[in-house]
Amino acid sequence: MRASSPWNSLSKDEMHVLESVFWSAGGSRHGIADQLGYSKSKANALIAGLIGQGLLAEAGPQSSSGGRPAETLRLHHDLGVLLGVDIGATSLDVALLTPDLRILAQHAEATDVRQQGPGVVLARVRSLTQTLLTESGHQPRQVLGVGIGVPGPVNFEIGQLVNPPLMPDWDSFSVRDFLRDDFDAPVFVDNDVNLMAFGELWRLQRSLPNFLEIKVGTGIGCGIVCHGEVYRGATGSAGDVGHICVDQDGPRCRCGKRGCVEAMAAGPAIVRMATEAAQAGESAALAECLRSNGRIEATDVGQASRAGDAAANGIIQRAGSLIGQMLASVVNFFNPSHVFLGGGITRTGPLLLAAVRQSVYQRSLALSTRHLEVQYTPLGEQVGLIGAGVLAMHETLKVRGIAP
Amino acid sequence: MRASSPWNSLSKDEMHVLESVFWSAGGSRHGIADQLGYSKSKANALIAGLIGQGLLAEAGPQSSSGGRPAETLRLHHDLGVLLGVDIGATSLDVALLTPDLRILAQHAEATDVRQQGPGVVLARVRSLTQTLLTESGHQPRQVLGVGIGVPGPVNFEIGQLVNPPLMPDWDSFSVRDFLRDDFDAPVFVDNDVNLMAFGELWRLQRSLPNFLEIKVGTGIGCGIVCHGEVYRGATGSAGDVGHICVDQDGPRCRCGKRGCVEAMAAGPAIVRMATEAAQAGESAALAECLRSNGRIEATDVGQASRAGDAAANGIIQRAGSLIGQMLASVVNFFNPSHVFLGGGITRTGPLLLAAVRQSVYQRSLALSTRHLEVQYTPLGEQVGLIGAGVLAMHETLKVRGIAP
Repeated sequence: MRASSPWNSLSKDEMHVLESVFWSAGGSRHGIADQLGYSKSKANALIAGLIGQGLLAEAGPQSSSGGRPAETLRLHHDLGVLLGVDIGATSLDVALLTPDLRILAQHAEATDVRQQGPGVVLARVRSLTQTLLTESGHQPRQVLGVGIGVPGPVNFEIGQLVNPPLMPDWDSFSVRDFLRDDFDAPVFVDNDVNLMAFGELWRLQRSLPNFLEIKVGTGIGCGIVCHGEVYRGATGSAGDVGHICVDQDGPRCRCGKRGCVEAMAAGPAIVRMATEAAQAGESAALAECLRSNGRIEATDVGQASRAGDAAANGIIQRAGSLIGQMLASVVNFFNPSHVFLGGGITRTGPLLLAAVRQSVYQRSLALSTRHLEVQYTPLGEQVGLIGAGVLAMHETLKVRGIAP
Repeated sequence: MRASSPWNSLSKDEMHVLESVFWSAGGSRHGIADQLGYSKSKANALIAGLIGQGLLAEAGPQSSSGGRPAETLRLHHDLGVLLGVDIGATSLDVALLTPDLRILAQHAEATDVRQQGPGVVLARVRSLTQTLLTESGHQPRQVLGVGIGVPGPVNFEIGQLVNPPLMPDWDSFSVRDFLRDDFDAPVFVDNDVNLMAFGELWRLQRSLPNFLEIKVGTGIGCGIVCHGEVYRGATGSAGDVGHICVDQDGPRCRCGKRGCVEAMAAGPAIVRMATEAAQAGESAALAECLRSNGRIEATDVGQASRAGDAAANGIIQRAGSLIGQMLASVVNFFNPSHVFLGGGITRTGPLLLAAVRQSVYQRSLALSTRHLEVQYTPLGEQVGLIGAGVLAMHETLKVRGIAP
C-alpha cells in the first residue's frame, strides 16, 4: 500500500489521465490519448510516469477486432479502497470497492430511516464498515474516498440533508461531518438517485450525455444526467418526480396532495393493492402468501404475476402504467435519449417494464419518444453501491487535483 | 469595415478573450483576466493585440464604486452586423444588431406559419433583410452571422425542423440552406424559446447556471438552461411543456389529448374565453371591444383587466393559474433558480404574473420553490431578437475559432 497523499505532486495533465482512465473503465493507451486530445507520445509518457508512481496499472489485453491486442489501463489497487454506502428508505447497503469499482466486500440489511435518526443509522454504517475492513484485511487509513447516498435532497457542497420529507429527523444533519473523522479521506454525500445516475454514467463510459435514472422503491425519484454531468438543480432537489399527480381523484399522499405517483405506484402501494386483493378473495396465490407470511411484499406480487395470477398482473400493470404516465410528462420536458429504471421494483419482473413502456409511448409526444429507450438498469441492484463508489472516486480525483 | 475572415490567424487564447468580452457585456480588462484565469499582463497583452487588429474596442468607463473607473471592452462594430430573425407562430421579427447586441434596425409584422410554407415566409425574411441592410447603409457581405428562431423542434446540427406540430409544411425543411447563399456568413437555426434562453443568458452574463424561460404566445414552450448552457435534449425537443395536462376533463387540444395547458391558457384560449364572456354579456368592456373591432385580442383582455373588469380579471387569473400548475410539475423536476416568462402574454400585465406565482408556490414542493424567483423577462418583447443575435455571435465565434 502506498504512503498517504500520492496526489500532491501530480500535474494537471496527469490528473486528466487518471480521470480519463477511471471513466473509460479499461480503456487503452490509444483511447486515452484520443479522448484527451494528446499526442500518442505525450499520453505514453504520462501513462508510463503514472505506472511508475504506482497510480495506474495495466489490466491485460482489451478484446480486439484484429491486430495486436491493446493493453488496457486501470487505477492501481494499491491506491486504496473506496467505501460506498447506499442508504435507502428501508435498506442499508455498505461496500468496499477497488478504485476501478470491483466490489471487494459488501453487506446489505433492512433499516428504516423514517423511524431511525441519523445517529443510529450512521453508527451502524460505522460498525459495518469496520467489519468489512477487518474481514477484507484493510485498515481505515487505506480508505481513499467515501461516497454516501441518502433518500432525500442534499446540499452537496456541505454534505447535508435539506428538508427531507421522508426523514424529518435528518434535516440539516451533516452526514459528512459525522463520518469525516473516521477516515483520512474525503466524504461525499448525495441523493440516492443521483448515485444511481453516477453508476450508470460510469457503466456507459459517459457515452450518453442526456438520460434519466428512475428509482422505484419505497418512494419514486429521478436522477438527471444533462450535458454529460449529474444535474442536482439550484438547491439540490432536482428529479423530485414522486409527487407528480397522476390522478386528481387518487388517494391522499403523505405530502398532503392527492394522486401523487409515489402514493399510487411505488412499493407500498403495490403491497397495499395486493393485500386488498388477497383479502377480497381475488387471488388465491396472494391470499396464500398473506396467510403463510403474515404479509405480502412487492416481490411476492411479481412472483404471483409470473405464475400467471390475474390479480397480480393487474396490480403490476396498473403501477407500471402510472409510472409511465409520470414519465411521459418528464420525457416531454427533458427529451432524454434513455430512461433506466432501478430500485426494488425491478424485482417484480418484465411485465412492469412492458407496462411502463406502453404508457410512456402512448402518452408522450411522438417527437420525444421517437428514439427513446426505456429499460431496467443493466447494473441491477448494485447500481446504487457502484454509484457510491463512482461518486467517491470521481470527487476524490477532483479534490485531490485541486489541492496544492 | 474589415476585410473578410478576420479570424483566421487568431490563437485559442485570443478566441477565449473575444468570447469572454462578448458574454460579459461591457466587462473590464480586470474582469476578463479574472474570468479566464489569466494573469493581468497576459490578458492585457492579448487585449492590446485584439484592439490593434480591430476586433475589440474600448467602450468608455464602467460605473465604478470608487477609484479610477475601469475601461470596459466590447466587440468592435467594424466586425460587421448580426442578422437576427424571430419567427413566431403568428409574428415575424427581423433585426440587424451590432456584435455587442445593440439593435441597429428592426421590422416586425404579423404572419402565420400555420398557413404559410417556408418558401413564402423565408422569401419575406430575405426581402426584409435587404431593406434593413440598405436603410442602415450595410452590404450583405458585412453580415457576420445569422441567428434564426422558429416555433418548432429543430435539429440544431443540420438547421432543420423536425416534425413541427404547428407547421407541418416546414417538416425537414432546411432553413439554413435556404438562407446560406445570401451571405458570406454562417447561419444558425434554433427553437424560438431557446433563442429567448440565449437572450436571457447573455443579459445575465451567464451568472445563473440553471433557469427556465417560458414563452406564452400562440403556444406555450420552455427554454432550458442547465449547467450554464442552453439544453436542447436528445433530439431537439426538450422544453415541450405546452402539452402537459392540467385538466383531464379539459377541452381537446389540436394534439388530440385533453386539457393541455396550451389549449387552456395560451393566447387563443384567452381570446376564446373573452369572446364568450363578451357574447354572454358578462363584460361591458369586452363586449364593446368585440363590437368596435370585430374581435378581441389578448392585449384587450389585459387592458380590460387593468381597468377593473371582473370577467377579464377572472380569465387572466384562470390562465395564470393553469400556467402555474404546469410550471409546478416542471419546477419539481428541474429545480431551477429562476423562471422568466416572455412572449405576447406578458402584455396582459401584472395580474397574470401574480396568478402564475401563486399557483406555482401553492403546488410545488416547498423545497424546490424556497428560493425560486418567477418574473417577466426584463428584456421584454426584444428577448427573442436579442437571443437571435446572441445565437449568431456565440456560434459564429465557436465556428470561426475551430476553422483553420
